[in-house]
Amino acid sequence: MAGNSFGNLFKLVSFGESHGKAIGGVIDGCPSGIELDLEHIQQELDRRKPGQSKIVTQRKEPDTVEFYSGIFEGQTTGTPIGFAIHNTNQKSHDYSHIKDQYRPSHADYTYDQKYGVRDYRGGGRSSARETASRVVAGAIAKQFLKDVSIQAYVSAVGELALNKPYQELDLGQTESNIVRCPDPEMARTMEDYIKQIRKEGDTVGGVISCVIKNVPIGLGEPAFDKLHAELGKAMLSINAVKGFEYGSGFEGSKLKGSQHNDLFNEDGTTQSNMSGGIQGGISNGMDIYFNVAFKPVATIMQKQETINNKGEKVEMQGKGRHDPCVVPRAVVIVEAMAAMVLADYMLMARTNKKE
Amino acid sequence: MAGNSFGNLFKLVSFGESHGKAIGGVIDGCPSGIELDLEHIQQELDRRKPGQSKIVTQRKEPDTVEFYSGIFEGQTTGTPIGFAIHNTNQKSHDYSHIKDQYRPSHADYTYDQKYGVRDYRGGGRSSARETASRVVAGAIAKQFLKDVSIQAYVSAVGELALNKPYQELDLGQTESNIVRCPDPEMARTMEDYIKQIRKEGDTVGGVISCVIKNVPIGLGEPAFDKLHAELGKAMLSINAVKGFEYGSGFEGSKLKGSQHNDLFNEDGTTQSNMSGGIQGGISNGMDIYFNVAFKPVATIMQKQETINNKGEKVEMQGKGRHDPCVVPRAVVIVEAMAAMVLADYMLMARTNKKE
Amino acid sequence: MAGNSFGNLFKLVSFGESHGKAIGGVIDGCPSGIELDLEHIQQELDRRKPGQSKIVTQRKEPDTVEFYSGIFEGQTTGTPIGFAIHNTNQKSHDYSHIKDQYRPSHADYTYDQKYGVRDYRGGGRSSARETASRVVAGAIAKQFLKDVSIQAYVSAVGELALNKPYQELDLGQTESNIVRCPDPEMARTMEDYIKQIRKEGDTVGGVISCVIKNVPIGLGEPAFDKLHAELGKAMLSINAVKGFEYGSGFEGSKLKGSQHNDLFNEDGTTQSNMSGGIQGGISNGMDIYFNVAFKPVATIMQKQETINNKGEKVEMQGKGRHDPCVVPRAVVIVEAMAAMVLADYMLMARTNKKE
Amino acid sequence: MAGNSFGNLFKLVSFGESHGKAIGGVIDGCPSGIELDLEHIQQELDRRKPGQSKIVTQRKEPDTVEFYSGIFEGQTTGTPIGFAIHNTNQKSHDYSHIKDQYRPSHADYTYDQKYGVRDYRGGGRSSARETASRVVAGAIAKQFLKDVSIQAYVSAVGELALNKPYQELDLGQTESNIVRCPDPEMARTMEDYIKQIRKEGDTVGGVISCVIKNVPIGLGEPAFDKLHAELGKAMLSINAVKGFEYGSGFEGSKLKGSQHNDLFNEDGTTQSNMSGGIQGGISNGMDIYFNVAFKPVATIMQKQETINNKGEKVEMQGKGRHDPCVVPRAVVIVEAMAAMVLADYMLMARTNKKE
Repeated sequence: MAGNSFGNLFKLVSFGESHGKAIGGVIDGCPSGIELDLEHIQQELDRRKPGQSKIVTQRKEPDTVEFYSGIFEGQTTGTPIGFAIHNTNQKSHDYSHIKDQYRPSHADYTYDQKYGVRDYRGGGRSSARETASRVVAGAIAKQFLKDVSIQAYVSAVGELALNKPYQELDLGQTESNIVRCPDPEMARTMEDYIKQIRKEGDTVGGVISCVIKNVPIGLGEPAFDKLHAELGKAMLSINAVKGFEYGSGFEGSKLKGSQHNDLFNEDGTTQSNMSGGIQGGISNGMDIYFNVAFKPVATIMQKQETINNKGEKVEMQGKGRHDPCVVPRAVVIVEAMAAMVLADYMLMARTNKKE
Repeated sequence: MAGNSFGNLFKLVSFGESHGKAIGGVIDGCPSGIELDLEHIQQELDRRKPGQSKIVTQRKEPDTVEFYSGIFEGQTTGTPIGFAIHNTNQKSHDYSHIKDQYRPSHADYTYDQKYGVRDYRGGGRSSARETASRVVAGAIAKQFLKDVSIQAYVSAVGELALNKPYQELDLGQTESNIVRCPDPEMARTMEDYIKQIRKEGDTVGGVISCVIKNVPIGLGEPAFDKLHAELGKAMLSINAVKGFEYGSGFEGSKLKGSQHNDLFNEDGTTQSNMSGGIQGGISNGMDIYFNVAFKPVATIMQKQETINNKGEKVEMQGKGRHDPCVVPRAVVIVEAMAAMVLADYMLMARTNKKE
Repeated sequence: MAGNSFGNLFKLVSFGESHGKAIGGVIDGCPSGIELDLEHIQQELDRRKPGQSKIVTQRKEPDTVEFYSGIFEGQTTGTPIGFAIHNTNQKSHDYSHIKDQYRPSHADYTYDQKYGVRDYRGGGRSSARETASRVVAGAIAKQFLKDVSIQAYVSAVGELALNKPYQELDLGQTESNIVRCPDPEMARTMEDYIKQIRKEGDTVGGVISCVIKNVPIGLGEPAFDKLHAELGKAMLSINAVKGFEYGSGFEGSKLKGSQHNDLFNEDGTTQSNMSGGIQGGISNGMDIYFNVAFKPVATIMQKQETINNKGEKVEMQGKGRHDPCVVPRAVVIVEAMAAMVLADYMLMARTNKKE
Repeated sequence: MAGNSFGNLFKLVSFGESHGKAIGGVIDGCPSGIELDLEHIQQELDRRKPGQSKIVTQRKEPDTVEFYSGIFEGQTTGTPIGFAIHNTNQKSHDYSHIKDQYRPSHADYTYDQKYGVRDYRGGGRSSARETASRVVAGAIAKQFLKDVSIQAYVSAVGELALNKPYQELDLGQTESNIVRCPDPEMARTMEDYIKQIRKEGDTVGGVISCVIKNVPIGLGEPAFDKLHAELGKAMLSINAVKGFEYGSGFEGSKLKGSQHNDLFNEDGTTQSNMSGGIQGGISNGMDIYFNVAFKPVATIMQKQETINNKGEKVEMQGKGRHDPCVVPRAVVIVEAMAAMVLADYMLMARTNKKE
């Protein structure tokens, strides 16, 4: 089944394995007439790319995107935007040791069972490298969205959690540190922790929060394609994500209606925003905010017992250059997916009324 | 935009407003040759229907489903299954007081903004009454799935939480009490609490957990249509849902890789199951389990200030018969959505390989 | 596989068998705010219904549509429009003789092979009765389209062909006769011919032509979803259709470019219209016109040899009340499908540009 | 709107403009485990490529396909197959003369109206160059289909028509001549005619016929996604196509039911095959055959009056290297589209029954 496309009217189809010739995609349905800032797209890719700081994988991949179509004299033409990011740092021999082995909590076993064949090099299609294509599409979506601001940030690394509502944070600080946590002091603590985790040959999970401002009222297509349902799917489709909550989230389930209801101001805005900017699956113009939980990276530098494809126990140890914690690099991926959802739903909303 | 269908190969399109003539739907893509137990379908509807116990809304609606097509001599024919549930308890005058008013944390405001018109009676399309159609489709999906068992249960009501892994619960007890909590003692506590909340004219949120056993290996369509991503969307599309997590979930984000990795047994099963039965977006044959957070019902029997459609402040108070807590009735909805996702992905998985 | 929906943004899902309880459908994506003329919808159904004249099947079916949702106080709300047409004239015993037999050139054999089970009564799902749902959706699409005029007519019955371009016909005459041929003299000849064919216990094919005027420029979504490609699919999905051509059609393939090219006027209109109002898959504002070929009805009142489901030769003879020629009743179906395509593409065209 | 993908389960998304950096696509949903013959894919591209003979455009483009993903150690992995064909012969200056002009019966005017911007070089996205991506996907589909044989051939060039049923032709002769007409004598006549047409600076239309043998019984998804409806859409989506008919086609509309019905043999095959291998929208195992009408190429080497984007009359004359007749090169495109439809429907058919 074809499961590699995302979106309805603003649609990305992505392709590519970690160690194949290239990854890339096709963006179909992007409206015409958008003046594209190609440098901005590359900057977004740089926020995701390996080797960018001391706390992420030290692989060096330039991740340079090449556009093939859909852009003419600097603007989108309304035709599909094909693009590729050529893989330049494939060391397939790095992975010969896992050819016949199933790494714990990776997708090796399930891919083999499902397809009967797999490109084992670097995780193949299940590698988070695939998300670079999402960042490209998300960067274009952002340029279409223009006045809508989408800001994600690291709110927890392991047990270290910000525990502050976004309103009390200076989100402008997010990119000022390599953890991408908007609280500089917490960022330092997190950074130290990640370094220590790496020294242990271990990895750790984390949480990314995201805030979307200036959202037009009316985005969302109930009953099934509610705005937050699609946002949730978008986030859960990112590698290593285990949970999604928006607005009051899991904490909100503990409250009473009298505590949780968002009372109206006369202009239609609300006094509180437990709803997280979405009511009945449709945006109400208030800020949308949500949290995304990431598990610890499965590849650790410690010895683990596992099995091979004959069902025999074998011992393995992670090699190569891996992230001790994915959340700093995943911030831009969260934003990209959110941008794609918003762009898609803004186009859909154009079809609501008679004219 | 057409947002009222769910699924790719096993597909439900739903229609209907709370106080219109009927709600219903069309199930398209259901395989032929399934011997349908129509009584079971009605029993599932009865698990959802209003008036079934003292802690749910006291509205009386029989919720009798009538099938129009797609079933012949007791079995599915492979053609679309059309069905309707006629509304028999519409008291539109109950709602004349909200005709021009926007109830806090409801969808009144957003529907009006989006469509410029709305059937205000009983919440119209945004009413949870719509989920009855899902229960019908889910019941049919369950009969297709057969050996796969899907069991949801109430794991929290407000602050009252089970805090036990499902393995330590006797899920067979879930339907033995009106809260649908498998721990009888906790069920009683929750029941008392819900009654007290209702006395206060208030409402409260809760959490539903779900366990799926005997899942075939290989379900899931990465990169975007990962099994858990679609499950997440399915759950988030249910009214009042604010969050979804599977496997280790948000707690898992606090762990280290060395704690979180699921080591293999020789037969491909895993010793732990932090992965929640899904690795790389594809089922690995272990139990799938997840949590769904529900906000407190927005309609409370206390006075609240709100606005009307002229932007004027008005006072309102909930009337009629509403649920103080939705989770007892939503258990079957969670199961229904899960069943639809599983049925859909089982059909997709038939197309993975050359033959 | 779910093959019972048509359209992308303006979408019909249809259900129902010829002799089941009801046929019907759900229209999802219809914009809000359309004042619906329900009488007009019923009139369109009456143009299709059996028993309307001496040259069509003499079955009596009122074909009364009942709407369940999506309409409030006379206008569309943007939510799905569910509807049903209850079957009132099912005489299942009429069909017991074909229970185990495969009628020549019907779908009996293929349905049995595909699904392993079939509702044999009256052709079940393969009955043209299913098209009544299309007429309902098409009638609503027409009301959305408003200024766009869609006029279909019978241009050939067997060898009797109009052979006149539509510009030379008075399309206002189409509904003045029971054949629905806009040339009154030819209509009489055709009527006599159809009566004679029926006397012979035989049937005959025909051609329906269709003209669409006042089409906005810019409808069509190349490369694959070209406007005429979707129109073609729409027409070919109607029972008994064997061919589709638009603009110059098959005759155009015999011409030279110098004869075929449509030269521009200064206002962007063209001097000729070989293109049939569509260039590069996108409407250019000129009239769209096309032809649809229908085969003769397979059920004839003559003895035919056929086989049963054991592969044994048996003799059969058509019983009951069947059309000697489908084209008079199919005129409104052609219009309905065209209207749905146009409505769908008008909504899509709203998403072309940046804003 | 995203209109650049074709297929449901075996899906091609295509991108690329005539004179951009590359055209290409992503094939999503191709089953795993297919041993790919890459040389065969290139051979199929060679059947379409410019410059292959004296009667086609003399542009030289190698049309070499480069695969980026989805293939590992010679076989498909079930993950998306990304590919590109780099454009090497772009002479943009060739097209500066049409920058502001609308060529008659081209898509220049409609693209400009729809998108407000267009890559005018070589027709941009509306160029038939886009079909090279279809040929790649079709070649892979053919390798999946294996025992199903799909053979297209030229059956008419202008007024020169074969007028023979395919059973009387030796389809093995199709590739023996540059016209791709299986009747060698007619092929020579057609070749001479095309050469003469080119000398006149003119172009001419034609018809391609196609025969599909060894089709499994049961392909087709009524009511809307009938097998022939999707085949029709596939063909109509090819540049320059004006009509499609299958089985008895337009001629069949002239016949009586007693002449047209296909009587059964005891084994379920039919004595005649007016149905064209499809009954009720589902394949019955007999040969599928159909005709596709192509209009004459719009670019002629004669002077024509046209308008520019200011609505002023200007004179223009075709420059460059264009096809006098497209059908010889389009034979492989027809086959490719048919192969994609068949592959798609074979996957869908796997989901018909309970198990």
